[in-house]
Amino acid sequence: MNFASDNGGPAPQAVLDALAAANSGYAGGYGGDDLSQDVADRIRTLFEAPDAAVYLAATGTSANALALATLVQPFETVFCTPDAHIHMDECNAPEFFTSGAKLTLVPGDDRMTAAALRGALNGEENRGVHGPQRGAVSLTNVTEAGNVYTLSELKALCAVAKEFDLPVHLDGARFANACATLGCTPADMTWKAGVDVAVFGGTKNGLLGVEAVILFDQSRAWEFELRRKRGGHLFSKHRFLAAQMSAYLDNDNWMTWANAANSAGMRLRQGLEALGIGIANETQANMVFFNAPRRVHRALLQAGAIYHPWGDLDGGAEDAPITGRLVCDWSTQDSAIDGFLALCASALKA
Amino acid sequence: MNFASDNGGPAPQAVLDALAAANSGYAGGYGGDDLSQDVADRIRTLFEAPDAAVYLAATGTSANALALATLVQPFETVFCTPDAHIHMDECNAPEFFTSGAKLTLVPGDDRMTAAALRGALNGEENRGVHGPQRGAVSLTNVTEAGNVYTLSELKALCAVAKEFDLPVHLDGARFANACATLGCTPADMTWKAGVDVAVFGGTKNGLLGVEAVILFDQSRAWEFELRRKRGGHLFSKHRFLAAQMSAYLDNDNWMTWANAANSAGMRLRQGLEALGIGIANETQANMVFFNAPRRVHRALLQAGAIYHPWGDLDGGAEDAPITGRLVCDWSTQDSAIDGFLALCASALKA
Amino acid sequence: MNFASDNGGPAPQAVLDALAAANSGYAGGYGGDDLSQDVADRIRTLFEAPDAAVYLAATGTSANALALATLVQPFETVFCTPDAHIHMDECNAPEFFTSGAKLTLVPGDDRMTAAALRGALNGEENRGVHGPQRGAVSLTNVTEAGNVYTLSELKALCAVAKEFDLPVHLDGARFANACATLGCTPADMTWKAGVDVAVFGGTKNGLLGVEAVILFDQSRAWEFELRRKRGGHLFSKHRFLAAQMSAYLDNDNWMTWANAANSAGMRLRQGLEALGIGIANETQANMVFFNAPRRVHRALLQAGAIYHPWGDLDGGAEDAPITGRLVCDWSTQDSAIDGFLALCASALKA
Amino acid sequence: MNFASDNGGPAPQAVLDALAAANSGYAGGYGGDDLSQDVADRIRTLFEAPDAAVYLAATGTSANALALATLVQPFETVFCTPDAHIHMDECNAPEFFTSGAKLTLVPGDDRMTAAALRGALNGEENRGVHGPQRGAVSLTNVTEAGNVYTLSELKALCAVAKEFDLPVHLDGARFANACATLGCTPADMTWKAGVDVAVFGGTKNGLLGVEAVILFDQSRAWEFELRRKRGGHLFSKHRFLAAQMSAYLDNDNWMTWANAANSAGMRLRQGLEALGIGIANETQANMVFFNAPRRVHRALLQAGAIYHPWGDLDGGAEDAPITGRLVCDWSTQDSAIDGFLALCASALKA
Repeated sequence: MNFASDNGGPAPQAVLDALAAANSGYAGGYGGDDLSQDVADRIRTLFEAPDAAVYLAATGTSANALALATLVQPFETVFCTPDAHIHMDECNAPEFFTSGAKLTLVPGDDRMTAAALRGALNGEENRGVHGPQRGAVSLTNVTEAGNVYTLSELKALCAVAKEFDLPVHLDGARFANACATLGCTPADMTWKAGVDVAVFGGTKNGLLGVEAVILFDQSRAWEFELRRKRGGHLFSKHRFLAAQMSAYLDNDNWMTWANAANSAGMRLRQGLEALGIGIANETQANMVFFNAPRRVHRALLQAGAIYHPWGDLDGGAEDAPITGRLVCDWSTQDSAIDGFLALCASALKA
Repeated sequence: MNFASDNGGPAPQAVLDALAAANSGYAGGYGGDDLSQDVADRIRTLFEAPDAAVYLAATGTSANALALATLVQPFETVFCTPDAHIHMDECNAPEFFTSGAKLTLVPGDDRMTAAALRGALNGEENRGVHGPQRGAVSLTNVTEAGNVYTLSELKALCAVAKEFDLPVHLDGARFANACATLGCTPADMTWKAGVDVAVFGGTKNGLLGVEAVILFDQSRAWEFELRRKRGGHLFSKHRFLAAQMSAYLDNDNWMTWANAANSAGMRLRQGLEALGIGIANETQANMVFFNAPRRVHRALLQAGAIYHPWGDLDGGAEDAPITGRLVCDWSTQDSAIDGFLALCASALKA
Repeated sequence: MNFASDNGGPAPQAVLDALAAANSGYAGGYGGDDLSQDVADRIRTLFEAPDAAVYLAATGTSANALALATLVQPFETVFCTPDAHIHMDECNAPEFFTSGAKLTLVPGDDRMTAAALRGALNGEENRGVHGPQRGAVSLTNVTEAGNVYTLSELKALCAVAKEFDLPVHLDGARFANACATLGCTPADMTWKAGVDVAVFGGTKNGLLGVEAVILFDQSRAWEFELRRKRGGHLFSKHRFLAAQMSAYLDNDNWMTWANAANSAGMRLRQGLEALGIGIANETQANMVFFNAPRRVHRALLQAGAIYHPWGDLDGGAEDAPITGRLVCDWSTQDSAIDGFLALCASALKA
Repeated sequence: MNFASDNGGPAPQAVLDALAAANSGYAGGYGGDDLSQDVADRIRTLFEAPDAAVYLAATGTSANALALATLVQPFETVFCTPDAHIHMDECNAPEFFTSGAKLTLVPGDDRMTAAALRGALNGEENRGVHGPQRGAVSLTNVTEAGNVYTLSELKALCAVAKEFDLPVHLDGARFANACATLGCTPADMTWKAGVDVAVFGGTKNGLLGVEAVILFDQSRAWEFELRRKRGGHLFSKHRFLAAQMSAYLDNDNWMTWANAANSAGMRLRQGLEALGIGIANETQANMVFFNAPRRVHRALLQAGAIYHPWGDLDGGAEDAPITGRLVCDWSTQDSAIDGFLALCASALKA
């Protein structure tokens, strides 16, 4: 009953098998090996983007920060939501990699609307050299609160960015889960919607630690490579990143695993709803946010359920509802879900 | 006959086995798992440093740059050799992670003498706020040219650093190879000699990509953790870094693998000497630098040998000697060495 | 009728006289001259802070950014208001000088309440290495909207900062105007209230371009000096900064000039109120914010009044009120004020 | 007898008069005033560069660092001499403003030869992403050792830079002195020779603190403006920088003052030579480097002469010669020179 995060579970056997398969003989370093080249080609094909530059990085934070650093200058600002991972959970990595650019928070929570984005962009009105210059828009799909932007929402947001001549970055730590929910192609969710640089995340969907950064415009590709090296993110034994990504692409595993995680999320959500427990967000992918009294959370956690309450368990009335975040991954078992639901039923009765 | 680098070969099976063993059930993220804690403890024991802070990073460049960033301020300078990896091969990563500190090159090649270091430290004479302030000394063992500092050399260099009240960083990308050559303990080569922060490299000695950074003084440990996260170098699925390091520590594998690489280097060197080929450096570990006419290099490479000539093959007289770098790793086969020596013999005769 | 800014008017003759007086013979460079030392001593005396470190800088942005850079680390965040000059008007200078620290906006406008500050500090809850660390609190007095924090408000805010063990920076671009309004001493408004580093601004109050940065704790004084030099902000002919500050301190000129500016502001405000024009903020110092229909602003500007409307003159209904900002300085003439009020009267009638 | 530096003397009266003349009425801030625009136009005319972007900064370090930051990327390196001010005397300002670019030292002292530059550029051979990329070449005229590059030397160096497609920065802290020595126009010494960005220094030649940065290619002009603001180097009361530069340009004062300084340097040099004292460098401008025994230096300094010995007075044999640096400025009096020469004569006899 571990729903703490989609970085807590094991990798599918196919990933380890791919590592083992790659672990033979000599290979060129720093991405010069055949497997690395092959994987980049396959991602270009998957994204229907033959001219894209494709790079692998081992962590989501590095993928995002390197992408942003190629898009914005130090005297610019990136527009994102207050819940964005790049703002909340990267310990100033975007500020570091961009050499001091700012993040401007578009009012709202995890999702921005086109109107809110336009308002924020206008709000950072042109005050000459005094304020930061508008630099880029950063979106996240699936969002940090488990919501999924629709393709039309993405298009509308990208269109606003283009009104201001700004590039769009897509944080796709849960790219596959969003794609699975939307039933769309990777191209639909990226360049066809107006995204300029996308992170195609693997780590939260089964890999040990690999994300692909896809620059649909190659003009700053070489700069990306230099920034990756300068950031210490170029692996000498690059084939072991490529091997993981290879397993991800094989047999549409990335989609299969995301579907499994999303299905688990749906089962969990429906079970909670059946118990009369309130669901906080739209929860269309692999994360479920549920509202329950403090005493229920306490009972669940004491009984061995593992997840993150979104608030202070000890800080208020026992009956006051707080939100809990449940995250499923490809490996989440029905038995774990059913066990958790049974715990919930007991806790509610107590 | 691939002697291009010690990052080109496969990982020992024990490493993949450890990954498989770690790939079961749920684990806390970001180093909060038991295996990560255990590995840190084992490194403290290995280094006889119960109070050290120990962190894992996936690349040598990140390990070095993060270490230096905790040691020096942006207005300071790091003293290193002109051949240092931090100067030559990290695309300004130290300057990036330190927010703009400088590197001061101590005259010499890959090794510095205590006298040269003292001279350089005095040369960066105290000119108040005008010049950079002295920040740290960075040493590398095995050096980039395949030489090994003796313990007394290390002690003498650290003593000079201490005269100026400066901390010492040890780039140990080939730490195990140096240790094997010196027949000393990890403690001997680090804190007992005066080193303050050491990188205990695994990537060039069999791992897929893991280095340990060891801060013998814990006072800046928390800062290191924040800088690692800010640099995008904290792995969410940290157990897979820990698993590799675990295999490294098991059964003294790190030493076994380094001895294998060093023995291969010795066999190669002796074979070359037996052919009358000049050896460029002392070559006490796993790298051999040999001098041969351009035409010999050309013949070797055309025959399928893979290694890096240290100079322009096409740029001068055919008989002018240039240096070639040969690197062995744990997996280098005697047959590959013998094959290469046979090629050399042929090429010399031709 | 120029009320555009307090950086638009001339300097008092005393400032030019002081420059002329200093312009004789040879003087040590980089602050090593007697006048520079003397001025620092006088500021220590004025602030009743014999152990403070005092430095001069030529621009407000550099004074703020250098001060913040000595207080916060790159992985930290500074708490300020959404209207703060450091956020709105310094083109990411704080992010630059701190090597990438973040600014966290405390909800509100130009002033923060102790409750809002505590909320924001708690909101940046401790999430380990994931989010930025709390670094410092930055206050501004007079605020950008012309309001003046009372001493008890300042104390309450500093007390909250101390609860979280954070240093407090005071942006005092209009320090003298605030002091004049409060009728307090410089010590009252700074270290006695809990401020750790204060900027004692001169540029907006008559000088050509000088601010003093006062570090009440000397422990990071040397670092400040190095950061000032590294930022290109150490003047070789430092005596010419010192001379300006000397004139500022002579005869309490700084207070006299601020009182003149504040009195002009009060006259302007009272005149506007007498005309029935709404005043937007408390306006206790040298800035007046007034609300008037677009058509009135247009009439005023066409008639030759110079000031900044706070909104788009052309973007909406003619009768919709928008705010105008009027700024007085030491040189503002009664005739200019009366002329402006007469224009207002005409425009309202039209 | 103060020969410590050309930043120690007073400003010509014309500079103070210009400040007084500018100190009347209201003026637009941040360079929006007429005088600032006029001065930029006059510099364009002086440099025969109607399309150049011209900006003022108050310190030489900021002028150099801002210029370099618009020319190079963080992953690049700037080629300069070991004696360059940007390397020796700016406390890592270039590294700061470029967000971590490196400086590569071209072997030699204060002057580089075209051959040495080409060697260094080739030496930073193309190693893909591993090393820093070649970014720019930085020259200084007059050099830090008082030498003056001829126009043909400048052209040859710029030509080498162009072979590698690199821009050239000219540190002209003593631009006027060099121009006076060469008898050339500002255009000759800059864009006609191949310089892309020049600093036209005023501070060491009579101004209180103003340098002009001239970008002969406007393409990065807006970026320069943003970087200047972000660096805290945009003056709100910009007219007071412009006023100084205006006085500099009036009546060719910049050339008159430089000629005065150079003539003083020549008188000093000839006087020393007449005494049989060795001159260290070519000394064609306003700095004279002379060799004398420690005991002579000691005698001179004790007798009240003020200058910088280039070495440790107390550290060796009394008769061992060390170099002394003497700097003249526009205000250096013949009487001071003659007094110094008399002291020298006495000291030599003693």
